[in-house]
Amino acid sequence: MSESIPHSVETEVHVRYAETDAMGVVHHAAYLVYFEEGRSHFMRTMGSNYADIEASGFRLPVTEAHLRYSYGVAYGDMVNIRTWLEESRSRQLTFAYELISVKTGKPLVRGYTKHVWTDTRGKVTRAPRIWTELLARLP
Amino acid sequence: MSESIPHSVETEVHVRYAETDAMGVVHHAAYLVYFEEGRSHFMRTMGSNYADIEASGFRLPVTEAHLRYSYGVAYGDMVNIRTWLEESRSRQLTFAYELISVKTGKPLVRGYTKHVWTDTRGKVTRAPRIWTELLARLP
Amino acid sequence: MSESIPHSVETEVHVRYAETDAMGVVHHAAYLVYFEEGRSHFMRTMGSNYADIEASGFRLPVTEAHLRYSYGVAYGDMVNIRTWLEESRSRQLTFAYELISVKTGKPLVRGYTKHVWTDTRGKVTRAPRIWTELLARLP
Amino acid sequence: MSESIPHSVETEVHVRYAETDAMGVVHHAAYLVYFEEGRSHFMRTMGSNYADIEASGFRLPVTEAHLRYSYGVAYGDMVNIRTWLEESRSRQLTFAYELISVKTGKPLVRGYTKHVWTDTRGKVTRAPRIWTELLARLP
Repeated sequence: MSESIPHSVETEVHVRYAETDAMGVVHHAAYLVYFEEGRSHFMRTMGSNYADIEASGFRLPVTEAHLRYSYGVAYGDMVNIRTWLEESRSRQLTFAYELISVKTGKPLVRGYTKHVWTDTRGKVTRAPRIWTELLARLP
Repeated sequence: MSESIPHSVETEVHVRYAETDAMGVVHHAAYLVYFEEGRSHFMRTMGSNYADIEASGFRLPVTEAHLRYSYGVAYGDMVNIRTWLEESRSRQLTFAYELISVKTGKPLVRGYTKHVWTDTRGKVTRAPRIWTELLARLP
Repeated sequence: MSESIPHSVETEVHVRYAETDAMGVVHHAAYLVYFEEGRSHFMRTMGSNYADIEASGFRLPVTEAHLRYSYGVAYGDMVNIRTWLEESRSRQLTFAYELISVKTGKPLVRGYTKHVWTDTRGKVTRAPRIWTELLARLP
Repeated sequence: MSESIPHSVETEVHVRYAETDAMGVVHHAAYLVYFEEGRSHFMRTMGSNYADIEASGFRLPVTEAHLRYSYGVAYGDMVNIRTWLEESRSRQLTFAYELISVKTGKPLVRGYTKHVWTDTRGKVTRAPRIWTELLARLP
């Protein structure tokens, strides 16, 4: 990973009532969906998006995920998702995430997801050219 | 619907913590997933299952859903899903559902889902032969 | 319902990958969550929000839901949720929804949800005063 | 962790259609819900369950989660969840999980979740006595 990569994107989402659980705060599995929203937004701001990448015959499945939980967040609040590319190699990627409460500024969750590039049948492959070109333009 | 159809199947599922919300009971959207589980189980007990039907080139998307909610149900309880085929025509189906709490016997939700048979591109079609044959064998 | 009520609010949400299913489009249960997002947004634009209403000791559980599905929508698209108050009585409410694809303008789902006002123990009650006051100010 | 703990419990669940995504397999976030089902089942087989524990004033929120994904699993298959207690200290627990496809035997996901015992207001506390007593009886 070059020094030029730690470019991060912020995404704000409302907590959905459906995402809360009987403890009154967002269920711990919902944070993987927030990570995914952060990642989707990051890719859109790069000038492409994951939908286009899928349409061109590539997939980017998750191979590993890690989450460390600090505070809970309730309905009525918003979540700020900061997403950055921790590492981009020819066949795999690592995204990292830091989520905070918009209302209180408290840290909610930190974590990362690792991914491999595959073709439509799941065979590991090199990153699509569109991705490497867009990546080269990141600040 | 002929008189021979009201054959029903019961499915019991544990309430999942992830399905509850900040009101302390199962979120109202989760009942459509319970309906789907009842429907899946109903089809398996007929001697086939929806996975096979999809593999043979058919889809059965939902075209309408209705739910009427009575009592809530909390984590620690189980849900009994009674599913039956309300109507089966050449191109469409209606499943009906009655959910009760296993612990208290209280009614939770009643409802139905309507479906059409389509091919893989979404074109409405006749029911697959495997379905009509299995249907003919229902008690 | 008086003539002054058909005030509607539009909410746009990105389709989340987690909301799609093996048919390649948004799973039918996810639309109840979109309805909820539309309703949440509607209440916020009224000048309050459902989190405040809960904090003041009221609940607004869903007692009935109906959905009619037209077209599917895939990841990469956005959903425009139009929400309006179909009816507001002293103890119950009906919200109605019309969802279209932002990309194609195609209708996705239409439906409604009915609700009752309850206290924190689930006893049906009159609408909180904050609600009736805000309602009176609707255009 | 003493040598006596690696007692494991197996739970089998049907893949739900709602849990799949546009890649045709179970969405990666759904595995945290499978972990939770394994953990719930594990606790029930110990002679208690998490619902009772919550009723007695304790909570067991997740503080960390890790998942390593191998193969995907489609609707029509079942998932076998093997759950065991990796570590139990006075104030925290680690559960570990190994998920395989019932149809093919292929490994799907391995991972763990860490938890702390808290009271109802979120203050970290010692494990409830019911838990330490039940734990002592584990084979």
